[in-house]
Amino acid sequence: MAFAQNIRIDLTYKGTGFRGFAENPGVRTVEGELRSALQQVLGQSVDLAVAGRTDAGVHALGQVVSFRIDGAEVDSERLRNSLNRLCGPDIQIREIREVDTDFDARFTAVQRLYRYNLLNSLIADPLLSDIEWHIKEPLDVEEMNRTAQRFLGEHDFTSFCRRPKGQTGASLVRTIHHAQWHPRPQQRIEFEIAANAFCHQMVRSIVGFCVSVGAHKRPAHDVEAVLNARDRSSAAPIAPPHGLTLIHVTYP
Amino acid sequence: MAFAQNIRIDLTYKGTGFRGFAENPGVRTVEGELRSALQQVLGQSVDLAVAGRTDAGVHALGQVVSFRIDGAEVDSERLRNSLNRLCGPDIQIREIREVDTDFDARFTAVQRLYRYNLLNSLIADPLLSDIEWHIKEPLDVEEMNRTAQRFLGEHDFTSFCRRPKGQTGASLVRTIHHAQWHPRPQQRIEFEIAANAFCHQMVRSIVGFCVSVGAHKRPAHDVEAVLNARDRSSAAPIAPPHGLTLIHVTYP
Repeated sequence: MAFAQNIRIDLTYKGTGFRGFAENPGVRTVEGELRSALQQVLGQSVDLAVAGRTDAGVHALGQVVSFRIDGAEVDSERLRNSLNRLCGPDIQIREIREVDTDFDARFTAVQRLYRYNLLNSLIADPLLSDIEWHIKEPLDVEEMNRTAQRFLGEHDFTSFCRRPKGQTGASLVRTIHHAQWHPRPQQRIEFEIAANAFCHQMVRSIVGFCVSVGAHKRPAHDVEAVLNARDRSSAAPIAPPHGLTLIHVTYP
Repeated sequence: MAFAQNIRIDLTYKGTGFRGFAENPGVRTVEGELRSALQQVLGQSVDLAVAGRTDAGVHALGQVVSFRIDGAEVDSERLRNSLNRLCGPDIQIREIREVDTDFDARFTAVQRLYRYNLLNSLIADPLLSDIEWHIKEPLDVEEMNRTAQRFLGEHDFTSFCRRPKGQTGASLVRTIHHAQWHPRPQQRIEFEIAANAFCHQMVRSIVGFCVSVGAHKRPAHDVEAVLNARDRSSAAPIAPPHGLTLIHVTYP
């Protein structure tokens, strides 16, 4: 008997070879590859909801998408294996499961956690140059944490976002739950930041700002003035995409 | 006053985008890029001696090259910065120093240490797929260590090497000082192997053999029979290049 299913896919991908997540005719995108593979295996076209529309060059460890499908029951294990054969090695499906009909990867999500990887050393590491931002000048991690703390809570992030075309009225108010820089072995520094949602280029703008403060180019207390300015030109240069990874999405 | 200097360069590179170390007209190689950059900075062509002639796709953390140069004194710091600008991000120079006239990166070396990275899990990791071999079937690390131990000491490695064309008479006797598989967090397994020197594809052949035993496809005690056969066809399939990294070269 034909019936409707709501399917959730947890996946990981390396963003280096993609022009971002969102499908875009003529260029290689994560959504494009995934939908094409799904169509090949399922024999029908599906619409994907996605938790985080990552930009070109941004990676994901715990991205979540969902879609509805009518027809025969989906065998999760077989579907995962087929998709991994078709999409690998840049995209790997971690898990596929049927979920409640009201689940939507984008709208049901209550928190997104991102990580940004820095290498703070004189010499870059060619083996990891696709997934970390190399910065030569010594960074003051304590100052970067004093900066990060000032972003906690609910703010209008107009100064730290690229406003999508044609969305002049959309709210850019977001709530940051967590923001912390962690010194790691071998001259690495990791930033973890969680919020209910992020607007476009927001993590990279915050990282760029923290790095400017860490390099003593501006004081940590500039955060408030820049937030209040509601003007993107008052923020620091944004960090490059390749250091950024979507780590985890939380659902109720 | 013009005088001769002997220069040692310690460098690291990601092998993914190169057709190996050795210069080869018409293709991108590490030696080709490095010699071209050296010529641009020094204004003269130099001949490089190299500790480990890595194959296409093989990486290096601690590769060593050396060359002699006549003329003005080399400013190591400036030369390193110039080379890193020209060669990055796939090649990074870690250190440049003047060494004794009898130093030769290849012939003075007394030990090479290689590492091989495995991911032993159902799902691959796209972020690290350039630098680790993904194997789905569960591997028995204890059996792999029993296998590795049998390679220790001096042996004729004819069965575990690809003999270079035109070198039918060259000795393939090598001495393995150390060979150990280490379980690591997140389903990783690392192999470290050190020898006075390695012949062509020797580490990858030994890794391929250990993995065959670890997957219970052949017994560990086959090592002796295969060594004694002096026949490459009796060994297991060789491991792919992208899991292999030259870690360190030892000089007296």
